[in-house]
Amino acid sequence: MQAIVKEKRAPGLTVKSVPKPAPGPGEVLIAVRHAGVCGTDLHIADWDAWAQGRIKPPLIVGHEFAGEIEGIGDGVTELQVGQLVTAEGHIVCGHCLQCRTGNSHICRNTRIIGVDRDGAFAEYIVMPATNVLTLDGIPTEIGAIMDPMGNAFHAVLTAEIPGSTVFVVGCGPIGCFAVGIARAAGASRVLASDVNPKRLALAARMGAQVTINAAKDDVVKTVLAETAGEGADVVCEMSGVPSALHQAFASVSLGGRVQLLGIPTAQVPIDFANEIIFKGITIYGVIGRKMYQTWHLMRRFLSSGQFDPRPVITHKFPLTKIDDALAAIRSGDAGKVILEIA
Amino acid sequence: MQAIVKEKRAPGLTVKSVPKPAPGPGEVLIAVRHAGVCGTDLHIADWDAWAQGRIKPPLIVGHEFAGEIEGIGDGVTELQVGQLVTAEGHIVCGHCLQCRTGNSHICRNTRIIGVDRDGAFAEYIVMPATNVLTLDGIPTEIGAIMDPMGNAFHAVLTAEIPGSTVFVVGCGPIGCFAVGIARAAGASRVLASDVNPKRLALAARMGAQVTINAAKDDVVKTVLAETAGEGADVVCEMSGVPSALHQAFASVSLGGRVQLLGIPTAQVPIDFANEIIFKGITIYGVIGRKMYQTWHLMRRFLSSGQFDPRPVITHKFPLTKIDDALAAIRSGDAGKVILEIA
Amino acid sequence: MQAIVKEKRAPGLTVKSVPKPAPGPGEVLIAVRHAGVCGTDLHIADWDAWAQGRIKPPLIVGHEFAGEIEGIGDGVTELQVGQLVTAEGHIVCGHCLQCRTGNSHICRNTRIIGVDRDGAFAEYIVMPATNVLTLDGIPTEIGAIMDPMGNAFHAVLTAEIPGSTVFVVGCGPIGCFAVGIARAAGASRVLASDVNPKRLALAARMGAQVTINAAKDDVVKTVLAETAGEGADVVCEMSGVPSALHQAFASVSLGGRVQLLGIPTAQVPIDFANEIIFKGITIYGVIGRKMYQTWHLMRRFLSSGQFDPRPVITHKFPLTKIDDALAAIRSGDAGKVILEIA
Amino acid sequence: MQAIVKEKRAPGLTVKSVPKPAPGPGEVLIAVRHAGVCGTDLHIADWDAWAQGRIKPPLIVGHEFAGEIEGIGDGVTELQVGQLVTAEGHIVCGHCLQCRTGNSHICRNTRIIGVDRDGAFAEYIVMPATNVLTLDGIPTEIGAIMDPMGNAFHAVLTAEIPGSTVFVVGCGPIGCFAVGIARAAGASRVLASDVNPKRLALAARMGAQVTINAAKDDVVKTVLAETAGEGADVVCEMSGVPSALHQAFASVSLGGRVQLLGIPTAQVPIDFANEIIFKGITIYGVIGRKMYQTWHLMRRFLSSGQFDPRPVITHKFPLTKIDDALAAIRSGDAGKVILEIA
Repeated sequence: MQAIVKEKRAPGLTVKSVPKPAPGPGEVLIAVRHAGVCGTDLHIADWDAWAQGRIKPPLIVGHEFAGEIEGIGDGVTELQVGQLVTAEGHIVCGHCLQCRTGNSHICRNTRIIGVDRDGAFAEYIVMPATNVLTLDGIPTEIGAIMDPMGNAFHAVLTAEIPGSTVFVVGCGPIGCFAVGIARAAGASRVLASDVNPKRLALAARMGAQVTINAAKDDVVKTVLAETAGEGADVVCEMSGVPSALHQAFASVSLGGRVQLLGIPTAQVPIDFANEIIFKGITIYGVIGRKMYQTWHLMRRFLSSGQFDPRPVITHKFPLTKIDDALAAIRSGDAGKVILEIA
Repeated sequence: MQAIVKEKRAPGLTVKSVPKPAPGPGEVLIAVRHAGVCGTDLHIADWDAWAQGRIKPPLIVGHEFAGEIEGIGDGVTELQVGQLVTAEGHIVCGHCLQCRTGNSHICRNTRIIGVDRDGAFAEYIVMPATNVLTLDGIPTEIGAIMDPMGNAFHAVLTAEIPGSTVFVVGCGPIGCFAVGIARAAGASRVLASDVNPKRLALAARMGAQVTINAAKDDVVKTVLAETAGEGADVVCEMSGVPSALHQAFASVSLGGRVQLLGIPTAQVPIDFANEIIFKGITIYGVIGRKMYQTWHLMRRFLSSGQFDPRPVITHKFPLTKIDDALAAIRSGDAGKVILEIA
Repeated sequence: MQAIVKEKRAPGLTVKSVPKPAPGPGEVLIAVRHAGVCGTDLHIADWDAWAQGRIKPPLIVGHEFAGEIEGIGDGVTELQVGQLVTAEGHIVCGHCLQCRTGNSHICRNTRIIGVDRDGAFAEYIVMPATNVLTLDGIPTEIGAIMDPMGNAFHAVLTAEIPGSTVFVVGCGPIGCFAVGIARAAGASRVLASDVNPKRLALAARMGAQVTINAAKDDVVKTVLAETAGEGADVVCEMSGVPSALHQAFASVSLGGRVQLLGIPTAQVPIDFANEIIFKGITIYGVIGRKMYQTWHLMRRFLSSGQFDPRPVITHKFPLTKIDDALAAIRSGDAGKVILEIA
Repeated sequence: MQAIVKEKRAPGLTVKSVPKPAPGPGEVLIAVRHAGVCGTDLHIADWDAWAQGRIKPPLIVGHEFAGEIEGIGDGVTELQVGQLVTAEGHIVCGHCLQCRTGNSHICRNTRIIGVDRDGAFAEYIVMPATNVLTLDGIPTEIGAIMDPMGNAFHAVLTAEIPGSTVFVVGCGPIGCFAVGIARAAGASRVLASDVNPKRLALAARMGAQVTINAAKDDVVKTVLAETAGEGADVVCEMSGVPSALHQAFASVSLGGRVQLLGIPTAQVPIDFANEIIFKGITIYGVIGRKMYQTWHLMRRFLSSGQFDPRPVITHKFPLTKIDDALAAIRSGDAGKVILEIA
């Protein structure tokens, strides 16, 4: 089969032919139809410091996908050939304290497809049946991006949204998803900031009632003005940019909640007294997707039509054009970029 | 001033002239513009067993209203003449354990306007400033029904709504409000049942995606069919009818939540094992409005335009036509009935 | 091996020799050391209406046990021969919505050992590895009763206990466990009621500061007197007796919480208005044990020495004396009755 | 009356005679019996940068106290002369969004006694009746330190404690209280760290099962070793020391909770990715006491005898010896220092 492979410990990705995998006990074989391209894939392609420490070539990359079940391994009874599915890409141990108490998303034995084992930028992938979720009518194009969308659902729906003012800091794909999810989940007012006007336009299209250009406007002043001086009840920090982190803390209301998802590349100095303690706020670190509460809610939002992520998909490429796909992400203007595989 | 008065211990209400009240320390005088008529007013007019045990005539009735502040008592600094306001009609002690721990809505020393002290079906009413809420642009017609709407907000927003299926049992005004609130708060699917087609039509207009005529259809079977066999995550029981209570328990999903607001007139036999325990459900008794968290969220939903209760208002009468207003409620076909006072 | 078998559709249990089972893929073979005898076993022995509808003889009975792992099936990596273990006796499907969202304890495909498949009153039992929990120093005598103790942990720890007043209604073994757990979890005051003085003495020994003989004393009046008129913040109803259910609702504080675990044998008429709604209370149906949050917390309480269930164990018998064990339960005076198997 | 006064904008405090105050409407006059001395009083005495920016002399200092009601202002019905009481020292507006939604502890209009208005280091103090709490048998010596104890109760009881491992970072008086509260609230294991052996001995006396000398031992390694490699479920950061903050984040379990109370004096660089986000933790800023849920629970813990703070009280002085009291705090070896006033 055709696959996008990290062949060696150097920059670049290769499209090449590799053996088609077969499902073992408890596994299913999925013919991939669509796959989402993520910043993580860019790090692997570019062979940055993180990639050098984590990736062991050769490896098929890609962790966001949807497709059709083509084969079923021994002992799998709850799935069947022909079903359209997506999958949680974090493969967890199932035995540790976190896994046994409903916190698999922070299992310390997690292995990620396309990072720690072969991934989804290929015509076929084998997955443990437990990680597979049926699409039940959701198109594979949308199914392919339920992994990053799930991060946004996790970030938004672990806060109390109905009647809240929500401020999304950073309008990359996950931030834009968060805007739409917050609106669909009953937020009374959604604000969004970014330095890129194209991304802000996308956020507006997803439902942000106020967009703030952080390169030009006073972010905190705008948020306070738009919230009767109270600040936002819930702030979703999706950028990882140090200045944006400070804006997140300054913009959250007294007693409010900051959901941290964006990953800063270095330490950020924080004034714990004034940014956190005296405000009586709660902060939550968002990693992965709750398994499988987040997926359940996501399917509800997608199946009901409450939330439509499609405006965020700005680019589509065939498998062979992975370099063009990565270039689109590098430009900073893209929303979600997907590969059409079958 | 003109007022609607329960004059003596017998059926009937009287429109008559009474002295205009004056605000004492910590109180404000409000010129009433609109008032909502409630089933409770009907009980008082009809002088039923409950009324005979609770009401001490003479008494100005009415507990749902909105109007304009016309006078300010000593020590009131946070309100001013000319503001349009509504008020929480439960006047609580402020000193008991419930009041001191955020549960004023169940203060055992509660005195209700129009029930335990003079009420709002009058040109003027005096209220403690703590109970007054500014409307901030919400019309007084809507402000006048924030008391019953608040019951619906309390019932709906104390459950987890985003992504949930919600079943509203009973489509009187509070049930119809609940339908709209559930939709606005991010429910994925809202179902509603009643025996009255007019009320079901109102529920549909408020956003119910499925309406069930309990007089003709199999309620439980329909709910299960519409929820992939799971039942509704959240059931709001707004009717107090014994058969509907059983339908509520049979329709809620395993591990789901039943919000009880409708008041049965007699004991109802319950199969605790199968209706509650083996299903692992949670039940919550909804009384009044959380003071003032419910009011805060309600103002958010109304000011943002997420939720518009106006379709539920089906009748308007002048103060003098209280008997016509009560007749409209008695008919069973009315949504919310309001009095236009000034 | 020796086992206690329900041989046919008639009263009685038989001790007989049956084939020793072998572990399949994902399973382990456990040599049983201690087993707990439960009211459910009595129902099966007595062949009551419930048993007639549920049990399909021949069947090895018993669902509470602990022992030593003697064999490991294919694919089991997290357990090893020689470990002392107990097990969750509810074998769930793992695929349904409840299982996928952290609510396996209400999986509708649950099969219970000793009820729906062969159980633990035998020298050996085969269990799915996922259901097995290592004892890590907890004696098998205690491990054998972690199933019913887990019901008590589930009931108590899903309420907010630190600083609360807790009233346990019914002092059978699970009620007595609940008393001790509530004390260990930081309750400020624990009250308990029963009609049997021996059981009340056991509750007192487990830490109840107030015991109420429901056959002689006014239960509700006593609870109110002992709680400054407020009632208990948390009531655990462990009896299933109709009069006790009413006492539970009358004894809970305004805004309090009632945990329902005892199973009434028939419908009970309830005054929803005064017993539930006007009090603003929350009710929770307790079934099984949260998988595996309840087990995790239970092991913490046992390993730390915070909670010692041993005073509740009043009788021990060898496997062959199952009839004596059942007689002890029938007497109504027993705490927990266990079988010493190896 | 005698009082300890900050007379002018310079270091030092003065014991002098000042007029006895009289209670206005809604206020009570309290004869102070015991008062607690706090680090804040030291800042005011020393006239540090914070004090220079906040304090407006002349001012009676002191905010922790208990005493006897000696006079009642107009409109106060719930209190009476002769009652022994303490008081919440944060006087809030009652009108802002935070006050109206159960978050008075973060009212932005808060005025603190002994900081923004006359305080409690005096023979008498006047307080709003709403802020006063009856002691109901709790000695005034303990009542006098319920303000800082309340900070510890707020920090501990807003986490889930029963069955948890709790790590208290910093064993000043509030840290030592937190140790005892965590034990009383059902923690399975309590660890505590400090650089001062005397404080660690105090923590051990309050119930810490593991004490870690941060000046000599590897704090994180010890916590992990004592928690089977998981880390502590709940970490209470009571020191404000940068290295201790990093230890708090490194010691908390995956998915755990960090309660931040200690106030760093400068910005602290944080690795958001590894210290917070990838661990999926929750952080909560603890300020003041929940009004009045924290006080209610605190009275429960004290009245029941579950928690006894007296070992933390290491020094007592008369009002005139305030300089000695401040010196004891400065030494770093003191637990809680109190003034005996009457």
